[in-house]
Amino acid sequence: MSRVLLTGFDPFGGEAINPAWEAVSHFHLKMYEGFEVEVRQIPTVFKKSIYALRQMLLDVKPDVVICIGQAGGRSDIAVERVAINIDDARIPDNEGNQPIDEQIVVDGPAAYWSSLPVKAIAAHIRQAGIPASVSQSAGTFVCNHLFYGLQHMIATEFANIRGGFIHIPYLPVQTVARPQLPSMSLDVMVKAIEIAASISVQYDSDIAAADGQLY
Amino acid sequence: MSRVLLTGFDPFGGEAINPAWEAVSHFHLKMYEGFEVEVRQIPTVFKKSIYALRQMLLDVKPDVVICIGQAGGRSDIAVERVAINIDDARIPDNEGNQPIDEQIVVDGPAAYWSSLPVKAIAAHIRQAGIPASVSQSAGTFVCNHLFYGLQHMIATEFANIRGGFIHIPYLPVQTVARPQLPSMSLDVMVKAIEIAASISVQYDSDIAAADGQLY
Amino acid sequence: MSRVLLTGFDPFGGEAINPAWEAVSHFHLKMYEGFEVEVRQIPTVFKKSIYALRQMLLDVKPDVVICIGQAGGRSDIAVERVAINIDDARIPDNEGNQPIDEQIVVDGPAAYWSSLPVKAIAAHIRQAGIPASVSQSAGTFVCNHLFYGLQHMIATEFANIRGGFIHIPYLPVQTVARPQLPSMSLDVMVKAIEIAASISVQYDSDIAAADGQLY
Amino acid sequence: MSRVLLTGFDPFGGEAINPAWEAVSHFHLKMYEGFEVEVRQIPTVFKKSIYALRQMLLDVKPDVVICIGQAGGRSDIAVERVAINIDDARIPDNEGNQPIDEQIVVDGPAAYWSSLPVKAIAAHIRQAGIPASVSQSAGTFVCNHLFYGLQHMIATEFANIRGGFIHIPYLPVQTVARPQLPSMSLDVMVKAIEIAASISVQYDSDIAAADGQLY
Repeated sequence: MSRVLLTGFDPFGGEAINPAWEAVSHFHLKMYEGFEVEVRQIPTVFKKSIYALRQMLLDVKPDVVICIGQAGGRSDIAVERVAINIDDARIPDNEGNQPIDEQIVVDGPAAYWSSLPVKAIAAHIRQAGIPASVSQSAGTFVCNHLFYGLQHMIATEFANIRGGFIHIPYLPVQTVARPQLPSMSLDVMVKAIEIAASISVQYDSDIAAADGQLY
Repeated sequence: MSRVLLTGFDPFGGEAINPAWEAVSHFHLKMYEGFEVEVRQIPTVFKKSIYALRQMLLDVKPDVVICIGQAGGRSDIAVERVAINIDDARIPDNEGNQPIDEQIVVDGPAAYWSSLPVKAIAAHIRQAGIPASVSQSAGTFVCNHLFYGLQHMIATEFANIRGGFIHIPYLPVQTVARPQLPSMSLDVMVKAIEIAASISVQYDSDIAAADGQLY
Repeated sequence: MSRVLLTGFDPFGGEAINPAWEAVSHFHLKMYEGFEVEVRQIPTVFKKSIYALRQMLLDVKPDVVICIGQAGGRSDIAVERVAINIDDARIPDNEGNQPIDEQIVVDGPAAYWSSLPVKAIAAHIRQAGIPASVSQSAGTFVCNHLFYGLQHMIATEFANIRGGFIHIPYLPVQTVARPQLPSMSLDVMVKAIEIAASISVQYDSDIAAADGQLY
Repeated sequence: MSRVLLTGFDPFGGEAINPAWEAVSHFHLKMYEGFEVEVRQIPTVFKKSIYALRQMLLDVKPDVVICIGQAGGRSDIAVERVAINIDDARIPDNEGNQPIDEQIVVDGPAAYWSSLPVKAIAAHIRQAGIPASVSQSAGTFVCNHLFYGLQHMIATEFANIRGGFIHIPYLPVQTVARPQLPSMSLDVMVKAIEIAASISVQYDSDIAAADGQLY
């Protein structure tokens, strides 16, 4: 039975909740056909987030890792394609760190690709009636930081793990005071993450499908 | 026991479904504390929609009427404040009519206000964690047409009815092919409409709260 | 020679400048074929703005009045179609007034139509390569207040004047700190306003063209 | 005297014009303090665009290369930070090629950083009152393709050249039929590109400034 590790961050940037953790914590103690899920919370802190994830990889021994993060202002599920080797924080993280243009891994490659089947994931989420797309940037804050750290650990230490990152929108309750921003319901996000986990377990390689961006 | 008539349009503009009808049809045969609900579908057709609604008012004898329509591209529940006396169709309706700058009621007033407590409705929907706002324009297509027709019938023929119009976003399934547009889940919309019905029954007059727009 | 009065508001809502006044003040001392222009600044204050405009109507004796206001966040020129009889201020005006759901003119009609050829204006602005559309709501703040007041004065006291309201976007300099918001250059706005003035002088009635909104 | 090569693409995706070429062609035969400019048009075609650029590097012998592309739907000047080694075309290029998930340079690095001072450029453009930001993705179409190709040629063949990519919005005339999309005037774009060229010549290294993205 394949084991899937799902992670979600704690709230940051003045938010009371983080949809990533709200969604991920729903998978606790549930059964899935063909795989089992472990869920863990990750602190929204540079460096510490990667150290925490490394310990989880050692403890959980997952086959697949999917880290989930909040993309406040997006309207769809964003399956991230690439992590870049840079920290550039517009706001402080949850312990006050605000690195500017620092490498995540000194002399590491400029970028790592997700090792999940990103297009198959996006396509199957859409087939379930949920808007999703492949994204070319996870930003330069702790989400991209953790994503890069994950892929670096896979490349250098955990060769049997496949992993990647998915961004999810605000929950409706987070947009009550800014109703012009899009949101997505928790059950829709949970369904999308379950599909992502299932497809990641089933697909060894990605499908060929146009899902790029013009700019 | 108060009786609430909820109406939803059939699909238009090339859409396979209309979230308004999807949401409204959920209320069939359900029980509510203090009011009962009747649901009806309205054709997305100029004039015919108003005639259909008039027959429903005669048949159902509602205390409150809430007409629901799709606002594709909005991110929140829009409680409409005002209907204007103009048809100006950017696309044809479901029978090919495309009036341009025609009065809905010849020599009728330029506008009618909703007779629902629009701010109380928006506030209570937000208190339930669902983004909502008061909107100052229901457009110039069949939604505004029906809304104006409803308020004109209330003003001239059905003085005991209170009524208004609420616009709702796309469903997630409608944005699968255009994921940059916002959407809202059916259960969230249904919850919002139930709150709107309940508040409309409970409140004789509206609350004082700033919920306007700068432009 | 026809005389056109152009008005622009002073800055409000924490902005250092108001694109309306920046644009309108460009017309000072310029010559136009077939009409002359007078420009005036209006305070962003409920009631006082209407009193100021009334004095301008008496002093300038214009044939056409076009009031210009800022619509921060819009991307195109918005030729307003209708003013509604309500003040509902989300923020205080420049003298601290924040009316909620008050009538502008007690027992006045619910709405007034612009008496400018709004579709001809929008069409000619677009023909000049500038994005423009007819808008169905000027909001519920001082812009709509002045617009309603103008149309009420035309309806009751200045029958020979034709007038209306146009909203314009932020200037680029106003979006430097929020680059995800659209803006428009001053020279483009000035060109659009000149076209609006010229068309208002030339057209006694509006053109028939689909320029409505679905919602 | 430093020499700056500016490139712009020909129109693509059904557009009649490309703002990149409209802007770049303005620099022909103009004089600048401290640098001279050469302008060239690049075909919006995979592979051929890179071959064309390579010949230009040999012919012009520039010190700085700035490639300009259209980002239809953006509202500000986007100074691109990173190019990724992937072609994933949502639409065909101007010769019908539509590669899906192909490497631009087989076994090339996953990404290259811009060698321009991207934050200094964005900061100085903003100081001139023009909205600008650092962007983390140039997409997966011909813009990113050329950007990656440029950085690869710099890394492997033209070590003395510094180069990068800037995306610019639609021109107003391009949004006339879709007025909800943002645009930017040609003179504003030209000013921004002139600043980018000047700063690229003046700054050997970038400034430290927070200009990242949360996601």
